[in-house]
Amino acid sequence: MTADVLIVGTGLIGTSLALALEGQVDVALHDRDPGALAVALGRGAGRAWDQHEPARHAVLALPLSAIAPTFVVLHERGVAETWSHVASTQSAVQRDIETCAGDASVLCGSHPMAGSERNGPDAASATLFAGRPWVLCPSPTTSASALRATRRLAKLAGADPVELPAAQHDLAVALVSHLPQVAASALAAVVLAEGRKNPASLDLSGPGLQDSTRIAASDPALWTEILGHNARAVAPLVRALADELHRAAGVLDGLAAGTPAAAGTAEALTSGLRALLVSGNEGRRLVPVKHGEHDSAFAVVRVAVPDRPGQLAGVFVAAAEAGINVEDVRVEHLAGRPRGVIELLVPPSESRQAAAALTAAGWDVVG
Amino acid sequence: MTADVLIVGTGLIGTSLALALEGQVDVALHDRDPGALAVALGRGAGRAWDQHEPARHAVLALPLSAIAPTFVVLHERGVAETWSHVASTQSAVQRDIETCAGDASVLCGSHPMAGSERNGPDAASATLFAGRPWVLCPSPTTSASALRATRRLAKLAGADPVELPAAQHDLAVALVSHLPQVAASALAAVVLAEGRKNPASLDLSGPGLQDSTRIAASDPALWTEILGHNARAVAPLVRALADELHRAAGVLDGLAAGTPAAAGTAEALTSGLRALLVSGNEGRRLVPVKHGEHDSAFAVVRVAVPDRPGQLAGVFVAAAEAGINVEDVRVEHLAGRPRGVIELLVPPSESRQAAAALTAAGWDVVG
Repeated sequence: MTADVLIVGTGLIGTSLALALEGQVDVALHDRDPGALAVALGRGAGRAWDQHEPARHAVLALPLSAIAPTFVVLHERGVAETWSHVASTQSAVQRDIETCAGDASVLCGSHPMAGSERNGPDAASATLFAGRPWVLCPSPTTSASALRATRRLAKLAGADPVELPAAQHDLAVALVSHLPQVAASALAAVVLAEGRKNPASLDLSGPGLQDSTRIAASDPALWTEILGHNARAVAPLVRALADELHRAAGVLDGLAAGTPAAAGTAEALTSGLRALLVSGNEGRRLVPVKHGEHDSAFAVVRVAVPDRPGQLAGVFVAAAEAGINVEDVRVEHLAGRPRGVIELLVPPSESRQAAAALTAAGWDVVG
Repeated sequence: MTADVLIVGTGLIGTSLALALEGQVDVALHDRDPGALAVALGRGAGRAWDQHEPARHAVLALPLSAIAPTFVVLHERGVAETWSHVASTQSAVQRDIETCAGDASVLCGSHPMAGSERNGPDAASATLFAGRPWVLCPSPTTSASALRATRRLAKLAGADPVELPAAQHDLAVALVSHLPQVAASALAAVVLAEGRKNPASLDLSGPGLQDSTRIAASDPALWTEILGHNARAVAPLVRALADELHRAAGVLDGLAAGTPAAAGTAEALTSGLRALLVSGNEGRRLVPVKHGEHDSAFAVVRVAVPDRPGQLAGVFVAAAEAGINVEDVRVEHLAGRPRGVIELLVPPSESRQAAAALTAAGWDVVG
């Protein structure tokens, strides 16, 4: 028997892919950790691979450093006709594979833009890839059949295949994913150093610090590997951010030292600060918030509620009954405050109606 | 007639304070912008001040640079017995007041730790301060009666008065509020510069970039003033963050240039990267997420839903019916994905029950 697809590695991505393919093609699964394999099989993700059976296409859903060595061994054994991997950085992995395997024309690198801060088959979901970009990164030697098989896989998983050269993919993820990770970790590292000196400071913290350090909780082992593999693309961005902050520190130092005699200088320094904040506004407007739309595409309706069970449900029921299309929700809880503010993002054309309907239903709409 | 409290400035903070004091003490309101005053009065926040009537206590809820000049003029006219302001930075304002007024013993600086990215009386709420810290920053010359009146005001507003020297307050807000603002603005400025070169990169962005740039949308005029006034405390923190990022950029440069011959060096570099990520984990754990609790105090239940109206309401109704205590919610919308993942934060002891109840109610619990 020949499997349609062999998935090697039953972590979050491998298991989700198997679940997404279920019922469409015949999927064999393998993981060198029998426990992880058992969890994936228990979730109904394909059948166990007997380590001999050939496959039309094999996907290496493995940690970055395991991809090239695993490919060399299994390809040597003629396990599959075409191959792909799902690495979160592409150029370095491609280089490794070409170094180790010589000819790697049967393989196409790819990267589904979906994930979770949770890992492992437990966190897998059949719909993880639905509607998300799945970047295909053929190398100059990748065969047409390997590219075709990888594109088909992405489509079967419900994703949107996008072809990008490996170098361009790596630049893009360096900006939208790796730079924010380094920034959040560095900010949290400063919080650690300063918070140890003045622990009481953190009692005054609010949603700004919470949001900007959220991804600092990510797995250090995973991220050390990702950043190391994409170092060439990430380094200049981290340096650009550091330079921007050094300039800001210089401006702030100047303002701190300022005397009335240096009023002209103070004005120039203040302009520097304002320019940074204005650039920040403009940069933020480039970030897609939902479905490729941006902040300005939504209006915010704020409802103050006592901070106790059932309030969130109450607001949503009132909104649903009024036919309001709630696009997103943010809950602001502040340390020690016995109430919260629920922010509902709605289409601007519906915001007046939403505020009126919630007020009529007895909720405290605060603006 | 003598007003109990005169509030000068009917922006978000002044109007919210008036609403919070309503029914407890007699409040007179003033704003040099008649439009803003009218909105505040229209919301039921006290009565208009006739500009002659004296007050027991006056609160200056004004932009930072307007506090000292306004105090000098009104104090000269003997308007109030004691005074306070609600400035978001304290030392510079205190210095300005002492420079302009000579004796400022009738005044106590203070800072309610509450706000919104929205400004103006429209966004005001009677419960804005409830349960939040309200920092009192008496100077060495502040009289006991001015401190007492300011503390009473904070309590009447439902806040928790905390006494801190101005310098210590400024260090704390520099860390928990001003540094994250500069970091987010600088990150978004890099996104702007790079996004202009490669606009397609941003199509691949996800929740990490969204969260870490959210506050980059803040008002540049307001923040230029805040950062300028607290420059002395903010500058070293911004420099520490820049240094941390420069070190990271150096490590990444080293890894990008690395050759197999330099394997020992590569190991040292990788350790540097891992150390940063681990410090980030530890720093994040210091950040209170809700009621002074931290990330680890909650378990996450993830529900995948089709991304269409009514789904959020449905999940909350199911949770409420099962008696689940949903502490917080995050909605992950990814560009182009026709579904979303709703993350419910629940007490760890309730997470199994919550997952089971939602599954039983037909929802797709994904981990």
